[in-house]
Amino acid sequence: MYHQLRKLFIGRPLHNRELSAEHLPKWKALSIFSSDPLSSVGYGPEQIAVTLAVPGLLLYGYIGYVAAAILVLLAIVTISYVQVSQANPGGGGSYAIAMKNIGEFPALVAAASLFADYTLTVAVSISSGTEALLSAFPALISSEVTIDLCVLFGILMIVNLRGVRESSNVFVLPTYLFVLSIFVLIGIGAYQAFTGATPAIPAESSVRQPFDWMVLALLLRAFANGCSSMTGVEAISNGVPMFQKPQAANAIKTTFFMAGMLAIMLAGTTFLILHNHILPQENVTMLSLLAEETLGRGWMYYFLQLATMLVLYLAANTSYNGLPLLLSILARDGYMPRYLGARGERLSFSNGIILLSIFAGALIAGFNGNVEHLISLYAIGVFLSFTIAQTALVVHWRREKGPKWKIRAIINAFGAVITGLVVLIIAFTKFFHGAWIVLLFIPAMIYIFKAIKRHYTDMAEQLHLSIADWKSLKQGPTGKNIIVVPVSSPTSVVVQTMRYAYSISTDVIALHVTTNREMGRKVEEKWKIWDPGVRLITVYSPYRLVIDPIIHFVEKLQSNKAAEDFITVLIPEFETKKWWHRFLHNQTGWILRTLLILKKDVVVATIPYHLKK
Amino acid sequence: MYHQLRKLFIGRPLHNRELSAEHLPKWKALSIFSSDPLSSVGYGPEQIAVTLAVPGLLLYGYIGYVAAAILVLLAIVTISYVQVSQANPGGGGSYAIAMKNIGEFPALVAAASLFADYTLTVAVSISSGTEALLSAFPALISSEVTIDLCVLFGILMIVNLRGVRESSNVFVLPTYLFVLSIFVLIGIGAYQAFTGATPAIPAESSVRQPFDWMVLALLLRAFANGCSSMTGVEAISNGVPMFQKPQAANAIKTTFFMAGMLAIMLAGTTFLILHNHILPQENVTMLSLLAEETLGRGWMYYFLQLATMLVLYLAANTSYNGLPLLLSILARDGYMPRYLGARGERLSFSNGIILLSIFAGALIAGFNGNVEHLISLYAIGVFLSFTIAQTALVVHWRREKGPKWKIRAIINAFGAVITGLVVLIIAFTKFFHGAWIVLLFIPAMIYIFKAIKRHYTDMAEQLHLSIADWKSLKQGPTGKNIIVVPVSSPTSVVVQTMRYAYSISTDVIALHVTTNREMGRKVEEKWKIWDPGVRLITVYSPYRLVIDPIIHFVEKLQSNKAAEDFITVLIPEFETKKWWHRFLHNQTGWILRTLLILKKDVVVATIPYHLKK
Repeated sequence: MYHQLRKLFIGRPLHNRELSAEHLPKWKALSIFSSDPLSSVGYGPEQIAVTLAVPGLLLYGYIGYVAAAILVLLAIVTISYVQVSQANPGGGGSYAIAMKNIGEFPALVAAASLFADYTLTVAVSISSGTEALLSAFPALISSEVTIDLCVLFGILMIVNLRGVRESSNVFVLPTYLFVLSIFVLIGIGAYQAFTGATPAIPAESSVRQPFDWMVLALLLRAFANGCSSMTGVEAISNGVPMFQKPQAANAIKTTFFMAGMLAIMLAGTTFLILHNHILPQENVTMLSLLAEETLGRGWMYYFLQLATMLVLYLAANTSYNGLPLLLSILARDGYMPRYLGARGERLSFSNGIILLSIFAGALIAGFNGNVEHLISLYAIGVFLSFTIAQTALVVHWRREKGPKWKIRAIINAFGAVITGLVVLIIAFTKFFHGAWIVLLFIPAMIYIFKAIKRHYTDMAEQLHLSIADWKSLKQGPTGKNIIVVPVSSPTSVVVQTMRYAYSISTDVIALHVTTNREMGRKVEEKWKIWDPGVRLITVYSPYRLVIDPIIHFVEKLQSNKAAEDFITVLIPEFETKKWWHRFLHNQTGWILRTLLILKKDVVVATIPYHLKK
Repeated sequence: MYHQLRKLFIGRPLHNRELSAEHLPKWKALSIFSSDPLSSVGYGPEQIAVTLAVPGLLLYGYIGYVAAAILVLLAIVTISYVQVSQANPGGGGSYAIAMKNIGEFPALVAAASLFADYTLTVAVSISSGTEALLSAFPALISSEVTIDLCVLFGILMIVNLRGVRESSNVFVLPTYLFVLSIFVLIGIGAYQAFTGATPAIPAESSVRQPFDWMVLALLLRAFANGCSSMTGVEAISNGVPMFQKPQAANAIKTTFFMAGMLAIMLAGTTFLILHNHILPQENVTMLSLLAEETLGRGWMYYFLQLATMLVLYLAANTSYNGLPLLLSILARDGYMPRYLGARGERLSFSNGIILLSIFAGALIAGFNGNVEHLISLYAIGVFLSFTIAQTALVVHWRREKGPKWKIRAIINAFGAVITGLVVLIIAFTKFFHGAWIVLLFIPAMIYIFKAIKRHYTDMAEQLHLSIADWKSLKQGPTGKNIIVVPVSSPTSVVVQTMRYAYSISTDVIALHVTTNREMGRKVEEKWKIWDPGVRLITVYSPYRLVIDPIIHFVEKLQSNKAAEDFITVLIPEFETKKWWHRFLHNQTGWILRTLLILKKDVVVATIPYHLKK
């Protein structure tokens, strides 16, 4: 039943040899890796406008300037970032390249930043996608969180557990449809603007208060908000191993292509927002307002909204391609639990996928679906990892001294300075708006990474196998094995348990705990008559506890035994025929086993006794 | 920490020899056992009035008649019920006496009825008590369910887990204060009525529609509702063993005393309701309205309300003295899980107390605190058990043929007929109002009782010990013990596990499951170099499952082994120093152990490996 459902949703297990087939052509990789930056057209310009429209529209005219600054930044990041794919074809992006070139600490900062970024991307993209849907169908507003969680667990998690190739097939079409619709929107809008009676930028959209410190502060905050459009640019360089060969070259081409499309889309929509003087509103996205203004509320409008919704859900999927891979690399290096590094039945990193879904689901549920104000927040993590990656690349080029290494180093140094500056801008202008959360989260994660690493290192030391130890094994057993068999009343279960005890040792103790002296005496008398050749020790428990006396008895044995002796406690366990019969037996055996295993240095053996009815 | 908290709330464990001290003098027993019937003054008359006031007040004048019928019934039940204590000093009431005299089936009907009755008593009494509080302080209405559950789990459950003697001390005062206040209320009210200008029963309270079938039906339903006042009369006879000696005589005296007080209180309040023409209202109890009318809203009013609240909470406590005892008797007879029969640290039947709290809490939470309409519903269970107990007594007296046996038999036969009639009346008039639930619940419970009994009987047969079996033990082991040690990589853990394996058998197999052929080959090579004298079997798992191949391997061994051979799987388990380190190890060992124990007929031994840091 469970297995059939699992097969239905997750698919048949994939064989190890099917792993190599899981590589992506460029056009597919583009749709998987770049849906995150491309889809940010759905909320990026709005994030700029929200900051500038708030203080009485006095700064609305600056929107274009901020957008231009963002485009320049995008160009710098893109150019300096394609070099990451080149320098580091193994994937893992900032983390891997920092670890290789500038050491553990910056690498862990990058890993923690990416961790925050990926998780926030999932939560924010899903909730923005649902908002695109709600803009078109306001009747659904009350079901917002439900829709979010269904998309998260019902679609994204399952599609990703099915594995990489399937997810690309599911998601290729929406990305291209979205790009197509935005291009059509920009085309129609631009045609209207330049053939209409009004000037291309109307007077009411050109309001600009004279420049002063307050204006600068707001512009910087708008810029910080707008940087959210650039999250996800790094996804391609983190996923280089998933490209077809030549992997690095293909990844670079895809990065350039993506950045170009993103620049056109951002510039176009910002222009149209100014042209139509669109203002931010509650419960409706600006892209929806713009589409309504330009296309009217016809089928094209609905088509665009649905495409936006799909591409935003797909953007959430970017993290599913990024974080589990990053976690597996961290796990391999010992900074995360080892099991995050293992591929599941379908060759995807199942544990990482489930972990990501749970974190993102908690964010959505915790913020009740209103995660928009987290959008700009997560840009800080992204730019931190940009800065680290490029600093690491400068060291890399210097060390390699390959062809054109000086130009490459200069490009990356410039990129590092600019993105580092952006980190400072975001951290300052958004500090009280939530940036402090990220600035606490990153050190906390680094602490966790290091604690995990320490544990694994300690363990490896303790588990280290000396050959002498191993050889001594063949000399045979040196100590005794003292067997303790708790006996409640003499039944056929005791006989079976005793038979096993005799088969492994000659040193067997039967232990009877009684809550009633008289009953205890009766059991002792029966024991004498039966005479199984084993001493019965009876312990009277006046406080009616059963487990404590057994544990005390084991403790006493333990303090008297020789170092090389073993103590084994045999616990019979009934296996009932029907599930509910289990509730008719007290769980003393189970509790005793758990306590002994957790607390004591004894071997606990469970002897099954399968009831036949 | 856990132990200290436990000690604070539950108290120090009590020694077995302290059990005999846990017996109650009459005046204490009265307050414990009779708070249930006495407190029903808080809702009993209201239940009659609600039915009769509904169809346009045309039947209000009949309230007195219905109340009189209830008093007559109370007399009959009391007289015929004191004989239960006499005939059956062992406690257990209807169930025990029916089992002894008229067989399993009626006994189980009685047990099921009492089960329903006790659980409903807790839920209904607590919510009625809270309503007395809310009548005085309407501001608390929104917290109703919270208050209910705090009283249930925070007070009643804990007090009862502490043991019998404490609970009587906590609860003695409120019962007597409640009785006192009601007597004062009746006294003042009666004085006002007979010295006032208006007639004792004013004209508006004497409205009576001419008698017809519809009137009869409504009167019968009002009567059925009013019977709720009589629930709990049986509590004393179920608790005979908790009285001081002579137990039966003390129980009988207490029963008479309680019935007398109840009769006076019911008659008095009904009279005052008629005199003051009190009508049922939402959110305020009739007793509160009556007290306000008679005493004004002064300190006496608040005192009465709080006393009513306390005594109703105390009434819920009656079930805590009744149900766990009944469950322990049922457990002793094999109709309920055995562990319900064991006394806890404080000599109370802890498991039964917790079970009752959970059921009652579920009822309160499920009905959102509005359990008033369940009040009349549970009378059906009570009267069913009355009828069964008295039928059983008739048989008992006939069989014993003691002094005056004929008179005793006639009294009980009469009681049985009357209470049987009441069962029919309640079942018919309240069928669609919820009586059907009880009429479904009782057969379901009987089915469960019998299924449990069947399981224990089957088990006893299977566990039966033949002496021959036992004797054969001493001839020593006959079969081999095949040891399987799953090995992931050769570490010091494997050495320790192997050392244990050698100490118990010469027939050891190391089993390595690899998800990667190359890694598997490396482990095999290392094994050859180390040469521990044991064959290593490597299984390649191309679908990256680890547990399934081990289980398949064990299955294959199982089908090849001789019948008398054992198979033992040794599972090493890391015990980490810090709790969170546990999450850094995958739980394969734990899952493998659980699956093997549940499904396979093999011994599973856990070898602890305590990490030092």
